[in-house]
Amino acid sequence: MQFSSDLLESAVNEFARLPGIGKKTALRLVLHLLKTDASMVQGFGETLIRMRQEIKFCQRCFNVADADICSICANSLRKQELICVVETIREVIAIESTQQYNGTYHVLGGIISPLDGVGPDQLNIEALVTRVQKEHTQELIFALNPTIQGDTTIYYIQKRLHGSGARFTTIARGIAFGGELEYADEMTLARSITNRLPVESYMAGR
Amino acid sequence: MQFSSDLLESAVNEFARLPGIGKKTALRLVLHLLKTDASMVQGFGETLIRMRQEIKFCQRCFNVADADICSICANSLRKQELICVVETIREVIAIESTQQYNGTYHVLGGIISPLDGVGPDQLNIEALVTRVQKEHTQELIFALNPTIQGDTTIYYIQKRLHGSGARFTTIARGIAFGGELEYADEMTLARSITNRLPVESYMAGR
Repeated sequence: MQFSSDLLESAVNEFARLPGIGKKTALRLVLHLLKTDASMVQGFGETLIRMRQEIKFCQRCFNVADADICSICANSLRKQELICVVETIREVIAIESTQQYNGTYHVLGGIISPLDGVGPDQLNIEALVTRVQKEHTQELIFALNPTIQGDTTIYYIQKRLHGSGARFTTIARGIAFGGELEYADEMTLARSITNRLPVESYMAGR
Repeated sequence: MQFSSDLLESAVNEFARLPGIGKKTALRLVLHLLKTDASMVQGFGETLIRMRQEIKFCQRCFNVADADICSICANSLRKQELICVVETIREVIAIESTQQYNGTYHVLGGIISPLDGVGPDQLNIEALVTRVQKEHTQELIFALNPTIQGDTTIYYIQKRLHGSGARFTTIARGIAFGGELEYADEMTLARSITNRLPVESYMAGR
């Protein structure tokens, strides 16, 4: 692309560095900002800079936070002895949006994947082990993606916490609400029969 | 979406205001910035703010510029008596990227569209009329989209410039290079036969 303005060109290049944003989309976004009020654009830029400089990670669960301890860990109304183990902040946001979970989290920062060079040491697993032992956690709910890497991570953590007295569970796998039975993959369908639920508990969740 | 950090939430909201960016994409972009070096994010924010505050529009052709006159108008090697009339800056960038055009531009800032409440007064048409008469422009090349609005705009400008001595042309319409004949729409195909070219001139352009 040829630009007649260096200012325009650098703004497009900055946007195009973001994942999933190509040069054409970047140009569209910049031309939109050009038509937007200057004070709004200033607010946009300053918000990003401030977010990056001031945001913290919770020292207990590694979730994003505005203080040393995140608002979920600091909330005494939540069950502190219940930990949901997730890969990234993204899953915390997804689960929080359901407004159904009342425990705490632990963000691993990834999953064990030897092929990608990610071992237990690169993740927040040691901190989880220490936390569970120190806080006498009652239950760990694994909410990891159902891949070999996810299963390996569950297996490793479970082994490290052997004898800690904590109970280990994973989120339920099965046919999604609204999902058509005939289009479900065989593995999911087979497991959903093996792990079938009493009708009362199914109805109670509706 | 539920966020455990206000800083994160405002950054996501700022991104989600951009056209074509939903909340999920905004979150993905913000989480990417969180992993990026703080000085890079600062550069990103400052570039946007500076672009919006310092960018100018060329007083002659209304293209974006870093000075009062854009680099195309200021370039004495380009044919100043040739004006390509376009709707937005986007088309200037597209045509410049071909590196085939050696004249100047005039950015209308839109096209005449009574249904959307856009009349000639909302566009940079008066400035174009003045410019053509003052500069004794030899040719106006209309590079507008082939819609009723585009045709209306061409018709209006041509009428306003009647007797100015300028020649009026439009960019060629036809089957795109690499386009399959059988998938072309009838109108384009019919016009491409009516406006057929001598083989020599076709070959010369390859």
